[in-house]
Amino acid sequence: MEKREELYSGKAKSVFKTDDPDRYVLAFRNDTSAFDGVKVEQLDRKGMVNNKFNAFIMAKLQAAGIPTHFESLLGDTESVVKRLDMLPIECVVRNYAAGSLVKRLGVTEGQALTPPTFETFLKDDALHDPMINESHIRSFGWATDEQMARMKALTYQVNDVLKAMFLDAGMLLVDYKLEFGVYNDGEIYLGDEFSPDGCRIWDKDTREKLDKDRFRQDLGNVVESYELVGRRLGIDFDA
Amino acid sequence: MEKREELYSGKAKSVFKTDDPDRYVLAFRNDTSAFDGVKVEQLDRKGMVNNKFNAFIMAKLQAAGIPTHFESLLGDTESVVKRLDMLPIECVVRNYAAGSLVKRLGVTEGQALTPPTFETFLKDDALHDPMINESHIRSFGWATDEQMARMKALTYQVNDVLKAMFLDAGMLLVDYKLEFGVYNDGEIYLGDEFSPDGCRIWDKDTREKLDKDRFRQDLGNVVESYELVGRRLGIDFDA
Repeated sequence: MEKREELYSGKAKSVFKTDDPDRYVLAFRNDTSAFDGVKVEQLDRKGMVNNKFNAFIMAKLQAAGIPTHFESLLGDTESVVKRLDMLPIECVVRNYAAGSLVKRLGVTEGQALTPPTFETFLKDDALHDPMINESHIRSFGWATDEQMARMKALTYQVNDVLKAMFLDAGMLLVDYKLEFGVYNDGEIYLGDEFSPDGCRIWDKDTREKLDKDRFRQDLGNVVESYELVGRRLGIDFDA
Repeated sequence: MEKREELYSGKAKSVFKTDDPDRYVLAFRNDTSAFDGVKVEQLDRKGMVNNKFNAFIMAKLQAAGIPTHFESLLGDTESVVKRLDMLPIECVVRNYAAGSLVKRLGVTEGQALTPPTFETFLKDDALHDPMINESHIRSFGWATDEQMARMKALTYQVNDVLKAMFLDAGMLLVDYKLEFGVYNDGEIYLGDEFSPDGCRIWDKDTREKLDKDRFRQDLGNVVESYELVGRRLGIDFDA
């Protein structure tokens, strides 16, 4: 498989075409951004850490029967993935109240959410990814009812797998964002990435933040925390 | 039935206890507010117009089998209603895109929404009534699943009745907000009010705004428009 021209460059990853029309290369960069791109920094080793973190999680999800776009690592900072037609929707599950939810709804940070909440956001930088509900998705045609039901079911399945995996490693999976797309077989696959850039992870006992909130809140040791989380889960970043 | 002390004073209505523990008096004031109470004015005759408008609509909904708290007119600006334990949720249906939806989702004003959207907002002035979804309502216990399903079904039933009624009178019911509560029989009833203060109504042909947007946007003739809408529907404000 041969890497061809860059198709798209996002805030932290770039997507490249390949000689296989159904395969892309995802390149994880060191760029780290927050607050809609207002705060941007280069963090050493982050591309490598997130690439390997994502590969590990996607493999675990695939083993649990959740279809993902991940195919194989291509090097320290790159992976081969299936080409998906992405749906313009971010799916968010929250096991504990944190971040924007706390400010918007006036609830207590750290409050356990039973059952976990499920939220959808429209992927649109210019509009700052506004929250939408299933009736907006239906009326504006952003996904079919069947696609939405499948994304919701898969998002909760991911929660069952990962919540237990993090807890076994002494951590709380507080919340996370998933994105999905349609492959050439017409089925929905988990796309994008799963890394500490797109979720919140707290130490189970101390509730120390181990995710991108360290960057947002200037707590330092951002990539070191990502690696610590990975090592606790059993990821070998030197492999 | 005897009117007793004021229980609560909202932005445009006051609620009074009565000698019947299951009955309140709603008093419609001339106060008109917008933008979370930032813009406030007294508009002559508005209390009377909204009281009679609301009585007319509630009677039509009741005749169509939708349970409402409305009992009877008590005078020009007051009505007797059932005492409900209000649920802290605003239910919004939109038949056409307008207002906050247009800004938030970058859609075209006036676009017909098929099917009509259904949105829920948390009634909380300090938080500026944030949008919430059914999973928030479930996880934070703001209503039971059964109550939420009932409110949604009733909100759409109201749409079937009122959309047709406005269309027959040459107007488009663009969007509206409903609030519900639980009566002493444990059932959900439509509460609050239905008036041009809480919905958008456009002339079918010219799309002239005939609702509170005239106040928000300084278009003038606010109460005159409310009365025009009412007269087109068959309301006799001098009765």
